Amino acid sequence: MRNINNKVDFLKESPTRKIDAIRERLKKENKDIIVFSAGQPSIPPPIEIRDIMGKMLKEESMNLYGYTPSQGILELREAVSDDLKLLGSIDVDPSSIVITAGGQAAMFSTLATIIQPGDEVILFDPTYFGYKPLLNYNEAKIIRHYVSMENDYQPNIDELSNIITKKTKAIVMVSPDNPTGRIIDHKIAKALSEIAIDNDLWIINDEAYKTLIYEGEHEFLYKYAPENVISINTFSKDPSIPGWRLGYVYGPKSTIDKIKLVNEEMVYCPPSFAQHMVAKYLRSDIRLKYIKFVVNEYKKRRDVMIKAVREKIPKAKFVVPKGSMFLFINLEEYKINGEEFSTQLLEKYQVASVPGNYFSEKYLSSLRLSFVAETPDRIEKGIDLIQSALQNNLF
Amino acid sequence: MRNINNKVDFLKESPTRKIDAIRERLKKENKDIIVFSAGQPSIPPPIEIRDIMGKMLKEESMNLYGYTPSQGILELREAVSDDLKLLGSIDVDPSSIVITAGGQAAMFSTLATIIQPGDEVILFDPTYFGYKPLLNYNEAKIIRHYVSMENDYQPNIDELSNIITKKTKAIVMVSPDNPTGRIIDHKIAKALSEIAIDNDLWIINDEAYKTLIYEGEHEFLYKYAPENVISINTFSKDPSIPGWRLGYVYGPKSTIDKIKLVNEEMVYCPPSFAQHMVAKYLRSDIRLKYIKFVVNEYKKRRDVMIKAVREKIPKAKFVVPKGSMFLFINLEEYKINGEEFSTQLLEKYQVASVPGNYFSEKYLSSLRLSFVAETPDRIEKGIDLIQSALQNNLF
Repeated sequence: MRNINNKVDFLKESPTRKIDAIRERLKKENKDIIVFSAGQPSIPPPIEIRDIMGKMLKEESMNLYGYTPSQGILELREAVSDDLKLLGSIDVDPSSIVITAGGQAAMFSTLATIIQPGDEVILFDPTYFGYKPLLNYNEAKIIRHYVSMENDYQPNIDELSNIITKKTKAIVMVSPDNPTGRIIDHKIAKALSEIAIDNDLWIINDEAYKTLIYEGEHEFLYKYAPENVISINTFSKDPSIPGWRLGYVYGPKSTIDKIKLVNEEMVYCPPSFAQHMVAKYLRSDIRLKYIKFVVNEYKKRRDVMIKAVREKIPKAKFVVPKGSMFLFINLEEYKINGEEFSTQLLEKYQVASVPGNYFSEKYLSSLRLSFVAETPDRIEKGIDLIQSALQNNLF
Repeated sequence: MRNINNKVDFLKESPTRKIDAIRERLKKENKDIIVFSAGQPSIPPPIEIRDIMGKMLKEESMNLYGYTPSQGILELREAVSDDLKLLGSIDVDPSSIVITAGGQAAMFSTLATIIQPGDEVILFDPTYFGYKPLLNYNEAKIIRHYVSMENDYQPNIDELSNIITKKTKAIVMVSPDNPTGRIIDHKIAKALSEIAIDNDLWIINDEAYKTLIYEGEHEFLYKYAPENVISINTFSKDPSIPGWRLGYVYGPKSTIDKIKLVNEEMVYCPPSFAQHMVAKYLRSDIRLKYIKFVVNEYKKRRDVMIKAVREKIPKAKFVVPKGSMFLFINLEEYKINGEEFSTQLLEKYQVASVPGNYFSEKYLSSLRLSFVAETPDRIEKGIDLIQSALQNNLF
């Protein structure tokens, strides 16, 4: 009688965990690994904020340790509200924001709230691999919309409209994009919003990378369709606390109220130490200075990577990423199988990457390369190694 | 088309949140509230450990901030394994332990893994109110087993055996108990384990309070039925970091592997700062000294509360709690309605308590009083106020 609920078999290990496991093994063999696989920042949060937290740890009070409201402390929700005003010129009341235990919990709780078995949900291809297991778990039917490199990975509004049916519940997307670094264009943002309104469906927009912008401007879809957009956010990338698990969701209040309850039952409240830290961060003088510094640094690294790829892997095709942390290179001219190549690249050349098939049913000769985890010289070294791997034609 | 999944309506706000909201309102009116309602510690974690964390915050490394394995860092799982050996003489391999974002996530993910729609699950009455919404959400059928004050809130093994059917999937219980402070007897622990083995069902034992023991000894059910017991744990009570959201589950490895994946999809990984903190705590010299200090302090407060209740509310019936944080008093001799009395007690006398009906379908004239949140003199004052409320017969 102790059989498990087979629905949980939809909940897969993140494919990057497999790569992490190989990295761990190689590390134990004292191999030096160049990490292009991780979607995590390499610059710790500002020392000024860490110092404040260190001082708070000395206080003989339960303030830092106690449960918080399940929606998150008001101080943080107010800071987020002001931040959205500052960054996106959008007006989101603190009561329409729920703080979550990271972006993953934000997406898990949002999908648990809005998806009913049999709902159709549109995912772009390529897109972040994290959405599919959650949609399968919630028994949604996934409909793919192919976005092409030739079209800068922007969705094609006509094609998109054509795949919408009466059963379409939502479009789940991410902008700035993982894995391509594409930012949704202004016109496309407005068109997507109109589609959502006209068809009475949700746009669930993952805005994890909204402050990591190198060119152009991030579009806050909420601006154009506040009743139809649920925005998924994280503090993992800014201010660089992925392990601390803090994020937030905003959207129409009645739906946020439900998402809040799912989060309460999942984790009771978001982690309090991280909440206090980020409340201090968002209100501090150094917030904009810090993120400017981080963006400049990542941009430098992006440019180093692009230059190296152009020189060393000249037949690689890609679109220069305007945001996020990744360069998505198409190596079909080298006639490789992305997954096999990525595995061999790690095992034999100690360069960790993520193959395109984790994001796509079409980009099967592609790799996602993170440019934020390594220093410029090591980025060059890594691209050299990819060149060698391609030349030695081992795959 | 944007209707929500009505299953989420099973996910209720914790009833103590409502009490918290009234407390907040009264606080704004500058009222001094005596808090007997909170199940949260009042003594911060050891300063020695907080100092270590403060120092680590100064390091220019991503070590403290990065993602961890979804199962939790090995260092912490090894420390937990050793801790279980030390405290319970049980041998649990670190691979059979998954660190979670608190006890709530531990229970949520465990029930999501093992419950299938239509499964019958046995809950004691009274028991912690947090299990019912999760069981409803997972579409289990709840079967109540009444445990009586006269029988020291121990389950009755014969009666329990009689309500087990072929559909019974699990017994979900908590020991040391919330709300009664009962510890499962040695004989009963063995009998429960036999029932689980004989009927091929799970015992999900919430051991949140396992180190808060004032008399007697905590029974680790895993000892008697390692293949049938899943143990739910938290670091909220020891070392007093409820807001940091850290807990763990242990049980048979194949099931833990599934529970791990649910946690990964829910929150990606448990909060890293808390993981590093607790790993240091469990390995430190002061761990046992600290918990001994905390238990002594809480025991003193428990005894103050019991003495005051005996003197001031002589017709209150209760069993002296051997563990956890609560005294569960039955006020039926005073002919009160527990929920109404609790509300008026807070509004008119500024004493926050939790009424029995949140835990029980039978104990409708009872209150759960936490003895850990207030100092001894304020505990006495709070009991005085309850006496006044009863005497003034307002309810």
